[in-house]
Amino acid sequence: MWADLRGIGRDAGSGGYRRYAWTGADADCRTWFQEQAEARGLAYETDRNGNQWAWLGDPHGTDAVVTGSHLDSVPDGGAFDGPLGVVSSFAAVDELLRRGAAPTRPLAVVNFGDEEGARFGLACVGSRLTAGQLTREAAHALRDGDGTSLPEAMEAAGYDPSAIGPDPERLARVGAFVELHVEQGRALDLSGDPVGIASAIWPHGRWRYDFRGEANHAGTTRLADRRDPMLPYAQTVLAARREAELAGAVATFGKVAVEPNGVNAIPSLVRGWLDSRAADQATLDTVTAAVEAAAREAADRQGVDLTVVRESFTPVVEFAHALRDELAKLLDRGGDRPVPVLGTGAGHDAGILSASVPTAMLFVRNPTGVSHSPAEFAAEDDCVAGVHALADVLEGLACR
Amino acid sequence: MWADLRGIGRDAGSGGYRRYAWTGADADCRTWFQEQAEARGLAYETDRNGNQWAWLGDPHGTDAVVTGSHLDSVPDGGAFDGPLGVVSSFAAVDELLRRGAAPTRPLAVVNFGDEEGARFGLACVGSRLTAGQLTREAAHALRDGDGTSLPEAMEAAGYDPSAIGPDPERLARVGAFVELHVEQGRALDLSGDPVGIASAIWPHGRWRYDFRGEANHAGTTRLADRRDPMLPYAQTVLAARREAELAGAVATFGKVAVEPNGVNAIPSLVRGWLDSRAADQATLDTVTAAVEAAAREAADRQGVDLTVVRESFTPVVEFAHALRDELAKLLDRGGDRPVPVLGTGAGHDAGILSASVPTAMLFVRNPTGVSHSPAEFAAEDDCVAGVHALADVLEGLACR
Repeated sequence: MWADLRGIGRDAGSGGYRRYAWTGADADCRTWFQEQAEARGLAYETDRNGNQWAWLGDPHGTDAVVTGSHLDSVPDGGAFDGPLGVVSSFAAVDELLRRGAAPTRPLAVVNFGDEEGARFGLACVGSRLTAGQLTREAAHALRDGDGTSLPEAMEAAGYDPSAIGPDPERLARVGAFVELHVEQGRALDLSGDPVGIASAIWPHGRWRYDFRGEANHAGTTRLADRRDPMLPYAQTVLAARREAELAGAVATFGKVAVEPNGVNAIPSLVRGWLDSRAADQATLDTVTAAVEAAAREAADRQGVDLTVVRESFTPVVEFAHALRDELAKLLDRGGDRPVPVLGTGAGHDAGILSASVPTAMLFVRNPTGVSHSPAEFAAEDDCVAGVHALADVLEGLACR
Repeated sequence: MWADLRGIGRDAGSGGYRRYAWTGADADCRTWFQEQAEARGLAYETDRNGNQWAWLGDPHGTDAVVTGSHLDSVPDGGAFDGPLGVVSSFAAVDELLRRGAAPTRPLAVVNFGDEEGARFGLACVGSRLTAGQLTREAAHALRDGDGTSLPEAMEAAGYDPSAIGPDPERLARVGAFVELHVEQGRALDLSGDPVGIASAIWPHGRWRYDFRGEANHAGTTRLADRRDPMLPYAQTVLAARREAELAGAVATFGKVAVEPNGVNAIPSLVRGWLDSRAADQATLDTVTAAVEAAAREAADRQGVDLTVVRESFTPVVEFAHALRDELAKLLDRGGDRPVPVLGTGAGHDAGILSASVPTAMLFVRNPTGVSHSPAEFAAEDDCVAGVHALADVLEGLACR
């Protein structure tokens, strides 16, 4: 199963994956998903938002137990973020059937579209639309770097964009959603556990900083006459790190766009994106306010205009306590300590769905903590432990 | 004369000029040049490298006095950089004849092709070829962004590319070259002079800084576990400004490329280009060494690798002292102070030719210092003062 997926959308140079929504690599991943469903005799369908579903039992039944994740990637992403959850879901279904388990509730594997937001700049588009957290109008207005709109991209990929939007009827049939994901940190490595349960997703957001100065000749313009937006951008990058350190949060400038971006031209515009997350809302607010204040001061000093736009925001997500406790009980091997429960700074489709349905997450150990990189890794033994844990959970939830 | 030129190659949206070598806008500029020559009864010719010449006196005589500049532009350039020199040259010839001056040396107005290098990425192609600083083979290998080669572009514009190359016989007939140019800085504005004389073109170079860290998830990677190349890049941007200020030089990071350039990804690579120039080589060396030292220290602190590559370098160009002193004498109005002599950070055809023939430059005041921008400007009075100064110089040199 892994072998068929491994080559799709992989860049020969970086070794990383470039599986962006509604591209050829995405289409190949979707074909793989459909083949996996059909090979198991699962009922395959795509919903109005282009998410893929594979059903064991009645696709129209209620109180369904759903598991899955996503197949798209960040630019030069790793092999595990997303695909591990989908592959493990199919493998857990196989394991259930091998055990002779008889589900009494409908059971589905899902692949949510465009989780990473690498193409249109907004994460979790597929689950957001379904959960009603992204309106049809806002989705229609999304454009990629080449100016292609989301509906145009969907249509080019052979999907009908006219029906996208909230899907409350479908959500109402989901009794529980469990997403398995490679850990994007080192908590399980440090505690020595192959698998853990998520407690919460930190609140997080993305802010676009537009520093506008004045284009001019880099060779002849006196320093005193410049309005160079690269300088306050640089100061803001350093302020973000400083404020995150002080607060025990994270803050990152990982994307930047410069105009005219010429070696001998002082920029007219430096646009940087801040990603920041913290364990609670108050801490996040403190960090982002301090970064913006530092940016404004630095911009003023250079005669540069600054606009800050919050492009996305997700409040803290506390996963359903009852479901979390049930998972902990199902995974209790009777050892001397319980399965670890841990928070995470990463957003997930599970975080979106948790507002609408009881939702839980399982994490599989990541020995380096590295993610969103070709070096992302999980050991085979730990992946197998993840599949068995997910099968235990599905059996416990769906086969009682 | 200005009016006919004003509309050529001007973008309606930006108001800037897009006169790139061997394009339609360039052809229109060339037609204008030929018409100006013919309207004055000057002998018109193009040389083997496509530069245009208009001769008063014998085009085959020796010890010629040549003046001129270029008509092409950078992307969205201003109206003055280049054209002011050509227009002023024709106007200065008119002024000479009005004065009844009788040249004893041949006198020519020249339009050097492709000075800005906006299309093929190399500046001063016309003068470089003529002066033997660009080989025929290297010129044939130049390609624009669409893959069109320089010979193909010349041929499409109706010029014969087969003969391009060094033109020592022509250069040997030039006794002096004087280029008038709008100042690309504010020195004359600050000193209160309409016209100045160039002392030298500052040495300048471009250095590529590759900061290599480790791509990782921006939401989940602990700050302590990061190797984020954006941080030392930011510190290097600030160090470049600081060192340039200390040394009275200029240093600019105007171009940057980030991989993977995702909002939620710590970059694996931040590549920045440093453009730095100073009045002399020792100062430039001091600045660039200090910037590199600061960059290495910042990179080490973050566990980031740094490679610095010098991509181009042009040593200082000192204009011929004898000719410069002669110009100063010719322009001495007997006032209480001499015409100012100033250095410049920008490259020019005059800088190329100065290696082969006695060369000088006149600068016309730029009240804002803005250049390479639609906002580039020179006042009409100052342009007229420039024409009179150039006429004085031509009269002094050619009519003795």
